[in-house]
Order: sequence, then C-alpha cells, then structure tokens
Amino acid sequence: MTEINERDKAVFEAGIKLGALYHQFVGTPISLETVDALERTIEDSIALQPHIRSVGVSIDREMVNKKLNPEFNYCELEGRMLHVSLSILYKNTIAQAELAYNEEKDYPLMTIKKIEEM
Amino acid sequence: MTEINERDKAVFEAGIKLGALYHQFVGTPISLETVDALERTIEDSIALQPHIRSVGVSIDREMVNKKLNPEFNYCELEGRMLHVSLSILYKNTIAQAELAYNEEKDYPLMTIKKIEEM
Amino acid sequence: MTEINERDKAVFEAGIKLGALYHQFVGTPISLETVDALERTIEDSIALQPHIRSVGVSIDREMVNKKLNPEFNYCELEGRMLHVSLSILYKNTIAQAELAYNEEKDYPLMTIKKIEEM
Amino acid sequence: MTEINERDKAVFEAGIKLGALYHQFVGTPISLETVDALERTIEDSIALQPHIRSVGVSIDREMVNKKLNPEFNYCELEGRMLHVSLSILYKNTIAQAELAYNEEKDYPLMTIKKIEEM
Repeated sequence: MTEINERDKAVFEAGIKLGALYHQFVGTPISLETVDALERTIEDSIALQPHIRSVGVSIDREMVNKKLNPEFNYCELEGRMLHVSLSILYKNTIAQAELAYNEEKDYPLMTIKKIEEM
Repeated sequence: MTEINERDKAVFEAGIKLGALYHQFVGTPISLETVDALERTIEDSIALQPHIRSVGVSIDREMVNKKLNPEFNYCELEGRMLHVSLSILYKNTIAQAELAYNEEKDYPLMTIKKIEEM
Repeated sequence: MTEINERDKAVFEAGIKLGALYHQFVGTPISLETVDALERTIEDSIALQPHIRSVGVSIDREMVNKKLNPEFNYCELEGRMLHVSLSILYKNTIAQAELAYNEEKDYPLMTIKKIEEM
Repeated sequence: MTEINERDKAVFEAGIKLGALYHQFVGTPISLETVDALERTIEDSIALQPHIRSVGVSIDREMVNKKLNPEFNYCELEGRMLHVSLSILYKNTIAQAELAYNEEKDYPLMTIKKIEEM
C-alpha cells in the first residue's frame, strides 16, 4: 500500500471524464447534419468538469451513415462511434487518455496514452 | 374500447419526445457559457425524431446560476431547468406539448397544450 | 382546435413513460445473469411515475446473447432489446402502449395498442 | 514522460467505472420502496465491466425522503444521493475508489482511497 500521488489523481480524473461522457451522451438521436454540433456540445460539457486541460470529440460519420434508419433518417449515438482524446492537468501532471473503437475486440476501448510529470 | 385515431397518435408522439429528451439530457454538465449551445443541441437532436414539426428548448439561466458549484463553476442540467415547447404533426393533426417547471407542485410538468385537427 | 380531454391525457402519459424509460436505461451494462433483475428495476422505477397502472418489461435474451462481448462477457442494453407493455389510468381512461422492436423497419417502435374509456 | 504502468491502469479503470455509473443512473425515478433494489441493480451492472473486483452502492435514504415529491411520492436519483465504493483489480494492483457527497464543497466527489501493488 502506498500514498496516492498526483499522477494517480490525474489518471483517475481522465477515467472519470471518459466514463461520464460515454454514459451521458450514448443514445442521443443523431444524423449527418447534427454530428458536428453534437461533437462540440460534448466537448464543451466535458470541458466544464474539474482538471480538464483539453478534450476533442469526433464521431465516426461512416458508422453514423450506415446506422441511419432508412425510413426516419437518423440513428442513435453509440459508444463505438465515439473517438475522444482528452488531457487532464492535475497540479503538475498531465494525463492523456483516449476512447476509441477497437475493431479486434469489437469494443469502445478507453486507454491512457501518455503521462507527463513536470 | 375504441379505435386508435390520428389524434391519439399525435398526442402519444408528443409524450414520447418529452420523456426521451428529459432522460437523455438531464445530468449533462452545464454553465452559463454552454447553455445556449446545449439548447440548440437538444432541439436539433429531438427534431430528428419522427413526426416532429418544431421544438424549442430554453434552459432557466437563473436556476443554472444558482446551482453553479462555487469551486468548479458548473452544475448539471436538471429537469426543473428545462422549458420545452414542441409541436407534432401526425398526418393532419398537430399536437402541441410543453415541459415546464411547476413551482406549486415542485415538479417538471409535461402537458398537452393544444390539438388541431385539420 | 379542440379541448384537451381525458383520453388525450392518458395517451400523452403513455408516451412520456416509454420515452423516459428508453433514454434512462439504454446503455446500461447487461449480461444474461443480470437481465432478470434489470427488467424488475426498470418496471419498478417507471411504476413510480404518475398515472401508471401497470408496466411489464422484457429484454430479448437472444439479442443480449448475440451482443455479449466475447472477451468481457457483457453488452449494453439497446433499445431494440426492449419489449415494454404499459397501461396508464388517467381518471376513467385506460391507455395501453407498447415498445417493441419492429424488424421490418429495424426500429424500436412505440405504439398505442388500446384505449378504454370507462 | 513515462511508461504507463499497472498502477496507472488500475486507477484509470476505477475512474471510468465511477463516471459511467453516475451518468448512467442519475435521473432514475426512485422511492424508499425501490431504493434497495436499485442499489443492487447498479452494483450488478457495474460489476460486469472489466477489472471490477467489487462494488458497493448505497443511496442516502434521508436525502431521498426529503426529495420525495409530496404529490407523486417519488423523486429522481441525484449524484449527491450516491455513495459508491469500488475496487479494481488490474493484474497485481488493487485500486479502491469512492464516490461520496462532500458537504463542504456541495459536490459528489470521486476519490481514490487506496492502492495496493502486490
């Protein structure tokens, strides 16, 4: 057992943000016309949370396009459509994390990409 | 027992949209800076659903302002902050419905306001 | 334009409940072991809402089974997995509505099934 | 910049689970009669996710009781009502984290409590 340090906290915060974003916005009705604005809205809402340095959200248009209901011309945001990169600054530590669809596992995978202790 | 008619379907669709919108977006992190864009995003996502003629979303800035966390400067979208007016067109029937905070009942109340059979 | 009547209100309430339930619970992690309890939880939470007479939720085990991630052995609740029957009692009117996956439209369809004015 | 290690991954997973749970279940209709079963449902759904060793959810009955709508006798699950303890096992590292309402900050705070590297 060891002390919780800055690095732990930065990484923990990164996880919180990805989990939150995913379960808040999955299920939102979406089309090719609304995808840009929804990306910005997700970014802006997550950017409000503590310790966020930056966040970029990109929704896979090809997947959206394939999932559009032919009669109603929209679909729902799914976790596998989301590509998110975010950066946490906790005191002097930066943690970068990502949500990206992993084709092999067929799973929207969240991973820590990089940690910088300044 | 009676036949389901156009009017029933219009009113039913109005209820679906209000219930959906409420439970999709409540919980979203929000501040006075993001409230405008979030209103548009909610409108645009609900407008994609079948039989929607128009939808207007307005979030109570005063309530948001009061709920802002003093340390983190954001809060979460709550049902009572939402004012929504929407209009369904089902064949030749228009149903107008509303979500608005009812102070007396302390409840975010959904009501049908007007039905026009043309 | 006509007066809003009891029948309108019963049907409207039915729509609200289906929309709410859908967007509240879609995205919940689920497996064949948790599906029974989740059905009861959804029923019990929706049964709390005003004017509900009864609600039955059944989740399509075959779809869940197909969607289980082979590595992690769970999936997420999707709208198309849900079969919901509910009954609203508004004063002297009963409205019965349903959410069921429509294969032809590839869409989780909500419909009013029956209205009884007593 | 340093290598991502087991400890980072354990802590990151703990964050993901708390963020996910929070934004999946906040908004669920709840009463004193349904609170027990909802706790179990949240636990069981989160326990399905990768690397979870244990999870305990407790909902503050006093807060629920205060928030019950006097007319309708239910309220919605809010983040501040949730007390969650969870433990992640990632390879040989255990990370324990918590979600608990912090009265001073008036905020549902997520914190890492303990990390054991075996």
